Amino acid sequence: MRASRFFISTLKEAPSDAEIVSHQLMMRAGMIKRLGSGIYTYMPMGLRIIRKVEAIIREEMNKAAAIELLMPLVQPAELWQETGRWDKMGPELMRVKDRHGRDFAIQPTSEEVITDVVRSEIKSYRQLPLNFYHIQTKFRDERRPRFGLMRGREFTMKDAYSFDRDLAGLQASYKVMFDAYVAIFTRFGLKFRAVAADNGAIGGTGSHEFHVIASTGEDAIVYCETSDYAANMEAAEALPLAATRPAAAQALTKTSTPDATKCEAVAELLKLDLARTVKTIALTVETETDGKVAKQYFMLLLRGDHELNEVKVGKVPGLAAHRFSTEAEILEVYGCVPGYLGPIGTKAPVTVVADRTVANMADFVCGANDAGFHYTGANWGRDMAEPTLVADLRNVVAGDASPDGKGVLAIERGIEVGHVFQLGTAYSESMKATFLDENGKPAPLQMGCYGIGVTRILGAAIEQNFDDKGIIWPTSLAPFELVLCPMGMDRSEAVKEATEKLYADAQAAGIDVILDDRGLRPGGMFADWELIGVPHRVVIGDRGLKEGNLEYQGRRDTEATAVPVADIVSFIQGKMAA
Amino acid sequence: MRASRFFISTLKEAPSDAEIVSHQLMMRAGMIKRLGSGIYTYMPMGLRIIRKVEAIIREEMNKAAAIELLMPLVQPAELWQETGRWDKMGPELMRVKDRHGRDFAIQPTSEEVITDVVRSEIKSYRQLPLNFYHIQTKFRDERRPRFGLMRGREFTMKDAYSFDRDLAGLQASYKVMFDAYVAIFTRFGLKFRAVAADNGAIGGTGSHEFHVIASTGEDAIVYCETSDYAANMEAAEALPLAATRPAAAQALTKTSTPDATKCEAVAELLKLDLARTVKTIALTVETETDGKVAKQYFMLLLRGDHELNEVKVGKVPGLAAHRFSTEAEILEVYGCVPGYLGPIGTKAPVTVVADRTVANMADFVCGANDAGFHYTGANWGRDMAEPTLVADLRNVVAGDASPDGKGVLAIERGIEVGHVFQLGTAYSESMKATFLDENGKPAPLQMGCYGIGVTRILGAAIEQNFDDKGIIWPTSLAPFELVLCPMGMDRSEAVKEATEKLYADAQAAGIDVILDDRGLRPGGMFADWELIGVPHRVVIGDRGLKEGNLEYQGRRDTEATAVPVADIVSFIQGKMAA
Repeated sequence: MRASRFFISTLKEAPSDAEIVSHQLMMRAGMIKRLGSGIYTYMPMGLRIIRKVEAIIREEMNKAAAIELLMPLVQPAELWQETGRWDKMGPELMRVKDRHGRDFAIQPTSEEVITDVVRSEIKSYRQLPLNFYHIQTKFRDERRPRFGLMRGREFTMKDAYSFDRDLAGLQASYKVMFDAYVAIFTRFGLKFRAVAADNGAIGGTGSHEFHVIASTGEDAIVYCETSDYAANMEAAEALPLAATRPAAAQALTKTSTPDATKCEAVAELLKLDLARTVKTIALTVETETDGKVAKQYFMLLLRGDHELNEVKVGKVPGLAAHRFSTEAEILEVYGCVPGYLGPIGTKAPVTVVADRTVANMADFVCGANDAGFHYTGANWGRDMAEPTLVADLRNVVAGDASPDGKGVLAIERGIEVGHVFQLGTAYSESMKATFLDENGKPAPLQMGCYGIGVTRILGAAIEQNFDDKGIIWPTSLAPFELVLCPMGMDRSEAVKEATEKLYADAQAAGIDVILDDRGLRPGGMFADWELIGVPHRVVIGDRGLKEGNLEYQGRRDTEATAVPVADIVSFIQGKMAA
Repeated sequence: MRASRFFISTLKEAPSDAEIVSHQLMMRAGMIKRLGSGIYTYMPMGLRIIRKVEAIIREEMNKAAAIELLMPLVQPAELWQETGRWDKMGPELMRVKDRHGRDFAIQPTSEEVITDVVRSEIKSYRQLPLNFYHIQTKFRDERRPRFGLMRGREFTMKDAYSFDRDLAGLQASYKVMFDAYVAIFTRFGLKFRAVAADNGAIGGTGSHEFHVIASTGEDAIVYCETSDYAANMEAAEALPLAATRPAAAQALTKTSTPDATKCEAVAELLKLDLARTVKTIALTVETETDGKVAKQYFMLLLRGDHELNEVKVGKVPGLAAHRFSTEAEILEVYGCVPGYLGPIGTKAPVTVVADRTVANMADFVCGANDAGFHYTGANWGRDMAEPTLVADLRNVVAGDASPDGKGVLAIERGIEVGHVFQLGTAYSESMKATFLDENGKPAPLQMGCYGIGVTRILGAAIEQNFDDKGIIWPTSLAPFELVLCPMGMDRSEAVKEATEKLYADAQAAGIDVILDDRGLRPGGMFADWELIGVPHRVVIGDRGLKEGNLEYQGRRDTEATAVPVADIVSFIQGKMAA
């Protein structure tokens, strides 16, 4: 490509609404252009990167025997009503009526449509397994679109759906997709981590997220440096910090703690380690039977320095649909204002649920169920009944033991760009998508779904790879792999000739090269390409040519390297393969 | 590709709602699957064809220096309001509200968005010319979607938009696009014709349609076999059938023609050639001034055997906004019921507009403005005033003189698949898209727009190329170029070996080959591939192999050709190039 035949538009300053670096740099590099909130035109420079992402995904999906098709954007409401998602999904689901007043959804994903396709096409177990995917525009009417392509409303996603005859088949298909994702993200040239994820409300039997590692990432991801354990914060299991409970050593003492409704304040007041305190969280669960609402109350106990993990709470038996108790409920049930609750004296109908670590604590500090007072030296069994339930209720912290027993946990930040998910039969049962098994009996299809946020990859790649000059693309994603910057092509015949020859040679070698023939001054030209992030650059100038050299500089290099004209293509190829 | 890793699903019968052959065959060949009215999933077999169409378009657009980007599907209403299309477009424009109640359109085309992009990017004439295109999903909420991909609601279109500094620039850009379209349709391997088109309501200065020739086509296209004149029916100019008017030879005679309100009935009653009669069409034009509506009346005269061309009528001075007169208006203005109107005795305020052919007729038959009576032997000048206006009002018919004077016109049927259009400054003026010219003065951008109906190409190609067995794809559009049909790969080691070798050799030669390893019987296998329309087939069987041969058969061949194993790849390449 010659720059004069392409469209290059860079900005010195990012628009003020671009809050994060990837959004700022994509706007400045002329890769995207805002059309509306969370809606962007992919400008020629940005589209080239998207196409490279798509091509890598497509190649690896095809290698994994997934079959590409294309499902419509505008999908009839009837299918979404079959699975209940028409009602369950909030305003993120963009709804539209046609001229006849019929309801449609603009697809955020395509589980319903693919299940509809498959239920009419698949009759027999002999046709299985199958895996269909498409790379298609999606729309989610986000409440607060932001961060450019990271949280847009209109975006591009690859979504794949596998269909198997049984759980073993699903697990095999899932493994194939997991491995394909590893291949895809490896080819992207990005540092990434696959982490076990919670299955969430959607149900199913297994799930992993793929995160691009970046210090600016929204998500905390947990991993063990000495094993392959990795999970997101919701799913990372916290083991008890002590294997057994120490014996009681202190007497139970009721202590005045005025205005100390938080563990931090209590610890400071009593000059104790925060890790000696226990905090109390009061929850209510409402159940309706024959139109009558009954309430159940739960007291959760967490070590003072630990954070509640709400996903884990939802998995405690009886707590799937919980909420925080209101102040009125707390006063009624515990006879005490919030901030001073504790397990001592608390009895039925309240269910006491202790975090695993709390269950093994001795001589701890907790609220006295009396405004302005805490107990010190509290001990299970002696001062109160053993907890009704013991469960993992907290977020892990760095240094916790890895649940696989093979080391300690570390935490880093990531940006979720992929998700693989064992759906099981949730969709196939609600949509009656069955096949005839070997005995001629109908059975529901076992489904998996597998997504990659195509446009989000761009944002994540930049968050991981940039400096104060601009973006630094991995070679596989760069809009151009190589830029040629001639110094005065219009003045020097030698420069012109060497430039055209290298341009032709690079193309012949299969290098995606752009020749900057815009006639800019060196400073402006270099600034543009450093901002855009082309990973390999060659400068062609009279001074170097006199010595038979061209100047190569990698985007992360601090200095240029003189390379003999005859060696330049193989030199670049070596750098590209590195 | 191995068929066992692909998804092939053929049907013996087409669904009953498939009215035309391309729709029937695409459904039977498993290329598309209906999701809703005018909304289809592109199944793997269909998507491969779409991708080939897109690749050819993309290559030729890039060669023509057009630059690819991607504009959003969901577009803010504000831009559409700037050009007035938000109100002007009917319910075909799919409108949607987001969670905040803001209005958006789902794009049917992207003139507004590209003009918005360009007005913020282009400052100076030095940045021109520019041509941007995208290949993107479109939505038009058609009143009556039908014919599969031919008139769908969701479809794929390539739309390009050129921007120039002046009309000469626009015309040059237009020519480049016209030539690119010729290259594209030639590479598709389809019989096509570019025809001059009417500019329609959108305005502008020039326009051509590209039609795929098919006897089932919706549109009549007009061309001269001995010159390069070609136009669609709306735009094809009709010259007067006689260069000069003959002298009057008959006396004017009022004749009783009871119940003969149509020229055909009059001709039959009077035993005259229909070409001797003249029919009358009464039109009304309403104009509003200061809230008061005034009406003007026009009498159009056409030879009895000719058809009115409403587009041409709209171009007659004063007739841009006409309608047919009501019966009440006719009674009031002409004092006569419809069916017996004529020019004799008709005077102001009625404007008489004669078709060019009628203006040069003598001794003709026309209504007498008296119920139940016609005149014979009517002559201009002698029996009535000369017509106020003479204009081209009719559709041409086969055998008419070509307007370029180089032969006679023929008519064939076509399917419109492309349109190139000189928009001029219609959009740039309403959206204030200007640039600074050489004198530093702002001037509106001259725009052109250029569309190709990507998914429609599939339907049109099939309407042109099918037989009773199925589709016959041109090699360039076929989902696979070559299919290998082994006879008993599982039984014969020789067949297996020869098949695998040819499969590898064909891939190495860059042929898009599918190996049918499904283990079907020959009849079912051949029927599938004939239905799907793969243009080249090789059968590998023990019988042929004993003699060192494979059996090649082109999709249009009636018999197979024995080809020595060693020659087969070059033989196929020869057939593919043919």
